Amino acid sequence: MSPLKKFCRGLERTGKVGYGQSMREIYLDWAASALPDREAHKAGLEGALKNFGNPSSPHRCGRRAAEALEECRRSLAENLGIEDRQLIFTSGGTESNNLIFNSLLLNRRAGREASSGTEDGPPLVVLSGYEHPSVWEPARLLSQAGFRVLTVDLGKDGRFDLTKLRGALEQNPVLVSVMGVNNETGLRSPLGEIGALIREKERGRRIFFHSDLVQAWGGERPGLKSWDLDAASFSGHKLGAPKGTGLLYLRAPEPRLNRGGGQEQGVRSGTENLPGALALAEAVRRRSAGLEADIKKAGEIKYFFIEGLTLMGASLSAPIAALTGKDYSPWILWASFPPLPGEVLARALDDRSVRVSTGSACASRGPRNYRVTRALGIPDELAFSALRLSWGPETREEEALAFLLILKKTLRALAIPLKPPAAGAIK
Amino acid sequence: MSPLKKFCRGLERTGKVGYGQSMREIYLDWAASALPDREAHKAGLEGALKNFGNPSSPHRCGRRAAEALEECRRSLAENLGIEDRQLIFTSGGTESNNLIFNSLLLNRRAGREASSGTEDGPPLVVLSGYEHPSVWEPARLLSQAGFRVLTVDLGKDGRFDLTKLRGALEQNPVLVSVMGVNNETGLRSPLGEIGALIREKERGRRIFFHSDLVQAWGGERPGLKSWDLDAASFSGHKLGAPKGTGLLYLRAPEPRLNRGGGQEQGVRSGTENLPGALALAEAVRRRSAGLEADIKKAGEIKYFFIEGLTLMGASLSAPIAALTGKDYSPWILWASFPPLPGEVLARALDDRSVRVSTGSACASRGPRNYRVTRALGIPDELAFSALRLSWGPETREEEALAFLLILKKTLRALAIPLKPPAAGAIK
Repeated sequence: MSPLKKFCRGLERTGKVGYGQSMREIYLDWAASALPDREAHKAGLEGALKNFGNPSSPHRCGRRAAEALEECRRSLAENLGIEDRQLIFTSGGTESNNLIFNSLLLNRRAGREASSGTEDGPPLVVLSGYEHPSVWEPARLLSQAGFRVLTVDLGKDGRFDLTKLRGALEQNPVLVSVMGVNNETGLRSPLGEIGALIREKERGRRIFFHSDLVQAWGGERPGLKSWDLDAASFSGHKLGAPKGTGLLYLRAPEPRLNRGGGQEQGVRSGTENLPGALALAEAVRRRSAGLEADIKKAGEIKYFFIEGLTLMGASLSAPIAALTGKDYSPWILWASFPPLPGEVLARALDDRSVRVSTGSACASRGPRNYRVTRALGIPDELAFSALRLSWGPETREEEALAFLLILKKTLRALAIPLKPPAAGAIK
Repeated sequence: MSPLKKFCRGLERTGKVGYGQSMREIYLDWAASALPDREAHKAGLEGALKNFGNPSSPHRCGRRAAEALEECRRSLAENLGIEDRQLIFTSGGTESNNLIFNSLLLNRRAGREASSGTEDGPPLVVLSGYEHPSVWEPARLLSQAGFRVLTVDLGKDGRFDLTKLRGALEQNPVLVSVMGVNNETGLRSPLGEIGALIREKERGRRIFFHSDLVQAWGGERPGLKSWDLDAASFSGHKLGAPKGTGLLYLRAPEPRLNRGGGQEQGVRSGTENLPGALALAEAVRRRSAGLEADIKKAGEIKYFFIEGLTLMGASLSAPIAALTGKDYSPWILWASFPPLPGEVLARALDDRSVRVSTGSACASRGPRNYRVTRALGIPDELAFSALRLSWGPETREEEALAFLLILKKTLRALAIPLKPPAAGAIK
């Protein structure tokens, strides 16, 4: 019997599959949190026990810690193609995003303009409509504080609406923020084109261009300089580093709405998390080493999923839809199984030891909302029935196959109505 | 030869002492960062590898992580004598303090009052003058945003000036913040009396009472309820938990100036740092178990230091001053060696493998400033020559003795001028 057949046989017998060393589940929710990189985590622990001093302490114990921290910064900055001083350690993507947005509240000139109104009107912030809550919610706060917030969605061609952005840029915004890879669907924004357009349209004052690269990082090499970004946010746990680690890239670091001991060039006060930095640097080094091969493999898994879903849709006469194409990340697949509610399908799969999500973990509170999918032009009926599959460099093809087998059984068990395919691949 | 004599002999021969398992230094800078609790750190690593899911993910992998997180919260809340829901995980003391202060910028009514001025004048924030930079600097921001900031220092009796506080409370402040234990000197604030006075004076609207308990926690059991606090900040690495962990106690949790996925009841968004929470809960459990005995031992070490410094001052005819008395923490000793600059002495000790500081690690940037010591009524000449010694439950008496021996040699080597004792113990 081939290893693959044995694998599937074992799967059918136990309802479970072996995964990694200790897990007996199929984990396809890497976009929520990656499988932890053991070596990176261990590097963090060793650093915590060895270099335990406060990096701000001037004695040798502190200096050793500070040197180790700067070595992490050097390694990460080199990986990102930027200068060391442009990299700020934070506690994660949400904090990095908040630092960018909330700091606008400090702009008293803007604040006064916002409340009193000037010739130009209140200051303008431009976003994509499909941002993560940690950009969207701080932007809502700015809106409550009197800022004007304009969103740019996808145009009729299904691509980021550069024409609308051009119009917004005429109004001289104080901030433009567009996420690199959308966390729910894997859509990649054309950051290069956006950056070029921003620089073309700005008059005198530089327009601050920020991107939430949390979902992009680890899955591709971000072009911070070539996209001409002023700031970008990164999270460690999305690529196997510990939770509670993150980065903020700042082209020109200056103090933000966080004050205290003045660590991290005054941008982010608080005792530096050296163990976290060590683990993050190690995780990035390891993830980066085989990245090109991993991206290729990820694309193959995605293709495998899409083929499988297409065949399944035909054999079940079920209208399965998926978002595919070159504008989408090879690490995420959004697929919809109307009229089944996505939550029902995800829960049924969960009972069969398959972990997938229906969208962002950070949007799992409260009732399902369609902000992101609507901004992407996805009908609510499809979004209602959607799953997000996401994987990582350790995901094997056997797991993808096992997932498809379990999915088919699950769809059958849920007696998916045999309607003619109404939706199909919507892209 | 007694073990102690052998220890000192070895010390004299090598200029170094054994410390813990792997260190060959005398670490008396626990107030900057504690020696890491290995068991707690390991608990964090194990949790990271085992419960790697995103606690916000609804599938089992996420739910297991969420359950483990809530178990940590339960354990910590019980230890602090509060309800689970009142405890918010943050990345550290600085973040907790910033959440309290920066959130006042959201108070638009206050902001309008601040800029326009009402009958009552701009909103008032009351602080002690000896706060940590992570309270002091955010308060300066508020002041720039139009808030009025009033500081209460020590009165003539060397105790917190309750009379001045009473006057400030008549002006109906929006926030009163007084740190529990001062990080540079170990001074304990009378939080019980302050809390009682606040509640006595408030008219109708509750006055928000916050305390930075970063330096207090681990060294005593804070009385969050008995002091009638509305909020308190805690840091993990000050008691052996990993850097990058902290807590915010909120009597009545409500959203603050941090937005995103709405984790932590909307108070602190961002993927929950489960490994950090596990390590923190474990460190607190372990530290808490023997706390009363440890406090007693800490007091003995402090007494030992003071005796040693007194004898040394007499034998060297050097004017050594120290802050002592029941208002001071048993874990910190501030001592001054005029006219030697504290930095010079600290560096000379550092060369002899003794790690002490001259003040807050978070105030180690830029020129030495005397804000805190002045608020405490300490003359600049003494503050200029000060060291801060701080220790923890693992500090042994032999180390205290070794420190005294090395200090005496160092003072002799630095040829401390043989002046008549001018300062003496100033308290």
